[in-house]
Amino acid sequence: MLRSHTCGELKIEDVNKEVTLSGWVQKVRDKGGLIWVDLRDRYGITQLLLEEGRSDTSVLETARMLGREYVIKASGKVIERESKNPNISTGSIEIDLTGLEILNTSLTPPFTIEDNTDGGDELRMKYRYLDLRRQPLRKNLELRNRLSIETRKYLDDQKFFEIETPYLIKSTPEGARDFVVPSRMNEGQFYALPQSPQTFKQLLMVAGYDRYYQLVKCFRDEDLRADRQPEFTQIDCEMAFVEQDDILSTFEGMVKYLFNTVKGVKINELPRMEYADAMKYYGSDKPDIRFGMKFVELNDVCKNNGFKIFDDAELVVGIVADGCANYSRKQLDKLTDFVRKPQIGAKGLVYVKYNEDGSFKSSVDKFYDQDALKKWADTMEAKPGDLILVLSGEVDKVRKQLNELRLEMGDRLEMRNPEVFAPLWVVDFPLLEWDEELERYHAMHHPFTSPKQEDINMLDTQPGKVRANAYDLVINGVEIGGGSIRIHDRDLQKLMFKHLGFTETEAQDQFGFLLNAFEYGAPPHGGIALGFDRLAALFGGQDSIRDFIAFPKNNSGRDIMIDSPSVIANEQLDELKIKVIK
Amino acid sequence: MLRSHTCGELKIEDVNKEVTLSGWVQKVRDKGGLIWVDLRDRYGITQLLLEEGRSDTSVLETARMLGREYVIKASGKVIERESKNPNISTGSIEIDLTGLEILNTSLTPPFTIEDNTDGGDELRMKYRYLDLRRQPLRKNLELRNRLSIETRKYLDDQKFFEIETPYLIKSTPEGARDFVVPSRMNEGQFYALPQSPQTFKQLLMVAGYDRYYQLVKCFRDEDLRADRQPEFTQIDCEMAFVEQDDILSTFEGMVKYLFNTVKGVKINELPRMEYADAMKYYGSDKPDIRFGMKFVELNDVCKNNGFKIFDDAELVVGIVADGCANYSRKQLDKLTDFVRKPQIGAKGLVYVKYNEDGSFKSSVDKFYDQDALKKWADTMEAKPGDLILVLSGEVDKVRKQLNELRLEMGDRLEMRNPEVFAPLWVVDFPLLEWDEELERYHAMHHPFTSPKQEDINMLDTQPGKVRANAYDLVINGVEIGGGSIRIHDRDLQKLMFKHLGFTETEAQDQFGFLLNAFEYGAPPHGGIALGFDRLAALFGGQDSIRDFIAFPKNNSGRDIMIDSPSVIANEQLDELKIKVIK
Repeated sequence: MLRSHTCGELKIEDVNKEVTLSGWVQKVRDKGGLIWVDLRDRYGITQLLLEEGRSDTSVLETARMLGREYVIKASGKVIERESKNPNISTGSIEIDLTGLEILNTSLTPPFTIEDNTDGGDELRMKYRYLDLRRQPLRKNLELRNRLSIETRKYLDDQKFFEIETPYLIKSTPEGARDFVVPSRMNEGQFYALPQSPQTFKQLLMVAGYDRYYQLVKCFRDEDLRADRQPEFTQIDCEMAFVEQDDILSTFEGMVKYLFNTVKGVKINELPRMEYADAMKYYGSDKPDIRFGMKFVELNDVCKNNGFKIFDDAELVVGIVADGCANYSRKQLDKLTDFVRKPQIGAKGLVYVKYNEDGSFKSSVDKFYDQDALKKWADTMEAKPGDLILVLSGEVDKVRKQLNELRLEMGDRLEMRNPEVFAPLWVVDFPLLEWDEELERYHAMHHPFTSPKQEDINMLDTQPGKVRANAYDLVINGVEIGGGSIRIHDRDLQKLMFKHLGFTETEAQDQFGFLLNAFEYGAPPHGGIALGFDRLAALFGGQDSIRDFIAFPKNNSGRDIMIDSPSVIANEQLDELKIKVIK
Repeated sequence: MLRSHTCGELKIEDVNKEVTLSGWVQKVRDKGGLIWVDLRDRYGITQLLLEEGRSDTSVLETARMLGREYVIKASGKVIERESKNPNISTGSIEIDLTGLEILNTSLTPPFTIEDNTDGGDELRMKYRYLDLRRQPLRKNLELRNRLSIETRKYLDDQKFFEIETPYLIKSTPEGARDFVVPSRMNEGQFYALPQSPQTFKQLLMVAGYDRYYQLVKCFRDEDLRADRQPEFTQIDCEMAFVEQDDILSTFEGMVKYLFNTVKGVKINELPRMEYADAMKYYGSDKPDIRFGMKFVELNDVCKNNGFKIFDDAELVVGIVADGCANYSRKQLDKLTDFVRKPQIGAKGLVYVKYNEDGSFKSSVDKFYDQDALKKWADTMEAKPGDLILVLSGEVDKVRKQLNELRLEMGDRLEMRNPEVFAPLWVVDFPLLEWDEELERYHAMHHPFTSPKQEDINMLDTQPGKVRANAYDLVINGVEIGGGSIRIHDRDLQKLMFKHLGFTETEAQDQFGFLLNAFEYGAPPHGGIALGFDRLAALFGGQDSIRDFIAFPKNNSGRDIMIDSPSVIANEQLDELKIKVIK
């Protein structure tokens, strides 16, 4: 071993020990007679000391050759430091250097290896191995590792088996686009990379494995929006002989366990909110409930007052921003600009200031007198000093718009602290979703999700109203996971495929193995999948997943460090019997 | 939850408890007045009892509808069993049934779900979800899960981080054939699936992560020999600031830990055998040292005696089979047939029986008298009662042949007990291997393996003699893992690429990112990768890995259950800008 200790472990109790450390040169300070070297490794930073006249001449000479990020092996005696540094764990000691060896040199890095670096995104991606040396990224990956260890510990204690499912599977046109892999041994045929191990985990339930999990890579060839990756990691789980409540309580337990062991945060019982309520009160199926500001519908108190915009609207709905009655004209204009942004798309914003003196000032004073506005305020349970913000329009659109405004106000009022965690279950999702483009319904979750027994009779008449035994885990406004009780009956599954527009032949071609499996004693089962990259980012208090992945791809799906994807040799294409179309 | 207990947990202490179990019907015995149902789940089997006149009529009726593999929910009271079954954990009790619900029916399975099934390989692969219900497979996957849990526990305790490396990487012509993945967003370009995370783990060392591991899927598009899978799992590890000894002792610790915790087997210190000795004494770089029968070279005592075959041979070498002097003519003929098989390729076999009375009987009595044969026996430390088996020919070939004969004799003499484990390290592998086909050297391990410092000067003159800092972990004649100390110096890496026939441009194109990384403070590092499927099979006492993988592929790389690979839609090909060549 090229070291006796790491750079993070020596303490005052170690004084007088002879030690050897190895690591990277973080900094050299040469004050003529005295040289200090900050030596860094994964575990911390230790200060090395050399003194003219006292330290060996050759050691001093070597030290004067050091540059940033040189790799060295340093030996010496632990001594107490004169001016201690309470900010680092080794701050009480330093090493009186007696031996120094340069293990490798380094060019000057293209950006600084500090907590706050001067490197731009592209440069940091290209030299990812240098970016990963920075402490914030090291902490992210350490957190991710800890999360995976504790996830496995919890599930293992609950008698789940981790079982690996295959990566070379079969392409199915349903859902997102597959990545495909040409098979050389089976000419003209292709494997697909899994978008999730969904069918395999269901087959494991048919096979009697009862409690399955896997931390597993999944793949989706989608146009990448910011912060989406073509490959991502899932905590994938399935249980047999369970009902929805059993799954919710098992994974509620996991959420609590992870927050407690990894973050030291105690989480209370998770609220369960129906999808319909989430849409009604938050305009979103992933409400951020770290703060209130619930929607209040105002049709009853706002309509039929001569204000055409409201009178024509399907829904008038508002929120109360506590203590914001003092917002300036400029601040209110900014909010109006915000909701008018094309990606939000509201036509305008109505505000009502509930002044401290009990009077009201609104943007619709022409149409509503003080009494009328008092009624709004009462309906919304607003207090003097509050600001009421109201949008109107078609139900679905206005809810989405108000959701954006609510989150914006949450940010402005600093009610979205990344160190506060508010998880909840959203339940009773619709089974089907209307696809505007294809003009047909598609499965909101996936085709294996079971409808609620009592809603099945609406499948033919009002398919959009059928609710599913489906649930999402939402934390701080982010969908962390989702799952459902699956169909385990062949006939119901076939009916489902029919409603999703599959012909019998298509269903049999693509999912015949699953339909067959259902004929041989499939148990009731259900499961959940959690986005592991996203969970790690959330635990790290960050929005972007990119810095919680060691080697992420950019928005064009490229790894710019290794320069991939790339052109391959013609011989490779020939062997695979494929050709690139120019 | 559709059960209060599993089918494996009820004991005599539970008598009188009201319980609910769910599972599969293993067997129904209907003796008219009495019906017994064996109910099975992952955890065990519990006997259910119904009695005419006592049990509820509707429950009896339902019971009479049950068939093999039906899924049921059964409620009742735990009672003591009259005739106990000591072979199963629940053998002291049975359930006096009061409620019975059929959760799902089952067609008659195409083969029996028993420890020894009547299903053929193809059928079992097609209905893998039924095959996986059989206890031997369940135990295999349970063992695999336990191994992965304990592997992670050991490495986590040793401060290794599990870090996920990407699956969509870059194709490199070196080594085995890559599976490739066309990129839709980058027209005409391809990702490759990793054959191993080799370069990424080295970059993690450059990034300062120090101790990395990952249980990771790897992919090789090779023509599949029996028991090779196109996707397989590796325990992939890398350490920085280490020398070879540090890696060996760390992973020796892991091997001992796994055997101890998972098998309850205590392993002593692992012998370390030089590659040259492994070849000399066992004719193999993966010697099975559960038994002796080491090779003894006989050139000195056998040659120049007028026996032309030996006189012309480069090497005469033999083994001693203890106590086999009584082998019959027929047995000896079978051994001769064995070594003459085309896949072994020896011309013949010379035997010497060292009879109990001290006399010798050999197939070469014409050329060697009793004194001469005594000399052979003395050289080989044979005793009266032993059988000496001798092969001759070119060094490399005859060693391979004698290795096969030695393993065959080990089998015949039952010295290869799958419940005995004899791990060892084979060290000091050659750096380069002559490729007959391409008429050039290629890296025996991979191009990143470092040569022994003292041998570097032979790289130009005698490349075949340069030894590498490379090592294999061998257990019971199976290569379980291999690794090396890597090159961490850019110039040495470039030299290595040159010797492997890369032009500067090729090296830069394919591995530029690694060569660049080596300019920014790469630490000394090395690692190892263990075949996880193989390790699981070894722990399970079996030769084949297939039944330690939940969903394996057949020898044509097909998953015959899901019928993959398959033809994909033309729209998919169009989007990917590729075309299949007919």
